[in-house]
Amino acid sequence: MQDVPSLVAQAREGRPRAVARLISLVEGASPQLREVMAALAPLTGNAYVVGLTGSPGVGKSTSTSALVTAYRKQGRRVGVLAVDPSSPFSGGALLGDRVRMSDHASDPGVYIRSMATRGHLGGLAWAAPQAIRVLDAAGCDVILVETVGVGQSEVEIASQADTSVVLLAPGMGDGIQAAKAGILEIGDVYVVNKADRDGADATARELNHMLSLGQSRAPGDWRPPIVKTVAARAEGVDEVVEALEKHRAWMEERGVLAERRRARASREVETIAVTALRERIGDLHGDRRLSALAERIVSGELDPYRAADELVAGLTEG
Amino acid sequence: MQDVPSLVAQAREGRPRAVARLISLVEGASPQLREVMAALAPLTGNAYVVGLTGSPGVGKSTSTSALVTAYRKQGRRVGVLAVDPSSPFSGGALLGDRVRMSDHASDPGVYIRSMATRGHLGGLAWAAPQAIRVLDAAGCDVILVETVGVGQSEVEIASQADTSVVLLAPGMGDGIQAAKAGILEIGDVYVVNKADRDGADATARELNHMLSLGQSRAPGDWRPPIVKTVAARAEGVDEVVEALEKHRAWMEERGVLAERRRARASREVETIAVTALRERIGDLHGDRRLSALAERIVSGELDPYRAADELVAGLTEG
Repeated sequence: MQDVPSLVAQAREGRPRAVARLISLVEGASPQLREVMAALAPLTGNAYVVGLTGSPGVGKSTSTSALVTAYRKQGRRVGVLAVDPSSPFSGGALLGDRVRMSDHASDPGVYIRSMATRGHLGGLAWAAPQAIRVLDAAGCDVILVETVGVGQSEVEIASQADTSVVLLAPGMGDGIQAAKAGILEIGDVYVVNKADRDGADATARELNHMLSLGQSRAPGDWRPPIVKTVAARAEGVDEVVEALEKHRAWMEERGVLAERRRARASREVETIAVTALRERIGDLHGDRRLSALAERIVSGELDPYRAADELVAGLTEG
Repeated sequence: MQDVPSLVAQAREGRPRAVARLISLVEGASPQLREVMAALAPLTGNAYVVGLTGSPGVGKSTSTSALVTAYRKQGRRVGVLAVDPSSPFSGGALLGDRVRMSDHASDPGVYIRSMATRGHLGGLAWAAPQAIRVLDAAGCDVILVETVGVGQSEVEIASQADTSVVLLAPGMGDGIQAAKAGILEIGDVYVVNKADRDGADATARELNHMLSLGQSRAPGDWRPPIVKTVAARAEGVDEVVEALEKHRAWMEERGVLAERRRARASREVETIAVTALRERIGDLHGDRRLSALAERIVSGELDPYRAADELVAGLTEG
């Protein structure tokens, strides 16, 4: 068993090993998960969570790294959570395509973690918020949550963030196509990366056109800005940070930030509750109560719905 | 609202419209679902449920139709449930590839129903057992449950049946490959259909070899027979029926049938309970309790796990 209070104290001092252990405790659903979560609760709520999504090839990893550099210049502590919904392997090790992140590997003000969610009980929706809580409690001012790989998890990642950045790149046929498929609804800030390439202006124009079509806005509503960057040369990255700050200020002013965080907490509680109930029901395999109910169904004495009622009633007593 | 007792009485008299209405009531999760299930419970347990699975192209539909004919010759009432997990459209209408079933369309001793489960709450595991209960209560002696289309639902279908038939055909490269992928564990009876084609003997031999490798059997254990058929000409179909009867007799003798039915009832109750709990949690959106919990999480007063405990406790009171 780990000494949780001591781990938490060490994590708050910025010791990466303590942070790593806490994340392992929460993502692995260890017996100490609840103890960790209870210890973290009063220490959370300070970090600003930025989600980064985009198709493979748009330069997500490079952009994340450039954002880390920009935030570090401001003296902020930064956490990076690279979520890979297609892999079952988590850990502190950097993923293959995250080589550029090694620029920050020796910086004690940066904590980088990759997290795999395939096969995880409750998946991404269950595991990511807990890792975010650890990084938050550990004193990260900004947490960048990035999806590695492709997938429908983009919307899910966005739902975990205070502000969502959607990345595009010119010359990718699927850029705007992907946009049509739903990212137009999730972006608070749009970034056209690789802006030194042909077609960057066209991509930005088309995106701007689609954004203006999609939403009718009241005065004072947030209009997602489009920022052009060349992340590999750090061009435009300060402008992205500026756009993020503006969005945060707008959200705070309007009460939107608190509202988003409440909605996120609601979903988190729901996911945990459903997962817990499913586990409890799973634990009943071979349980006498379930066997007895099954027997009565087979004999025609009981229908499965009334049996389920009895099962549910029994669950919360236990 | 439907008059459930009257519908049930009509269904037992073999009126297809009443059966159709009852299935619609149970698969659509209508407000009367529970009333229907309670009314059916004492009338169930007579039907013998046969699952038919196999890759597309092996002749599932033809084989099902031939089995219907064979059972009808014995004077049995037969229900056919064609489950399509890839489609969202259910109904009494025959699916496109089920043309041969129209041989039985005018036979009052046969009830044919297609059922789509895509997008259904709880999916196949939730919807199919309820339709089976309706057909059982309506007096079907045998219910043939057949998957339409491809999928991982084969194992799921098998888990709903008393006896599982796995169909193969010669000359399909994927035949035995598919077998490797798991069907070797689910078949109680194997059928090599299209046995007039080249390679039928080889397919049967290979299957026989794999079956003998896969399991070590104690004396008295069931050894799945392999039956060769040409379903389109009804050849070998009586032998399939005979193999099914033998398996049934073996199960009854050993208490396996009752055991399988209890296991099935257990899973059914579990699925209903999980689905019901998930719905109840879903209903809490906008509920004050959940909002209040979320507020306390955002403020750091509560962690999401304790909040989930409170939510679960509240669920069963409501």
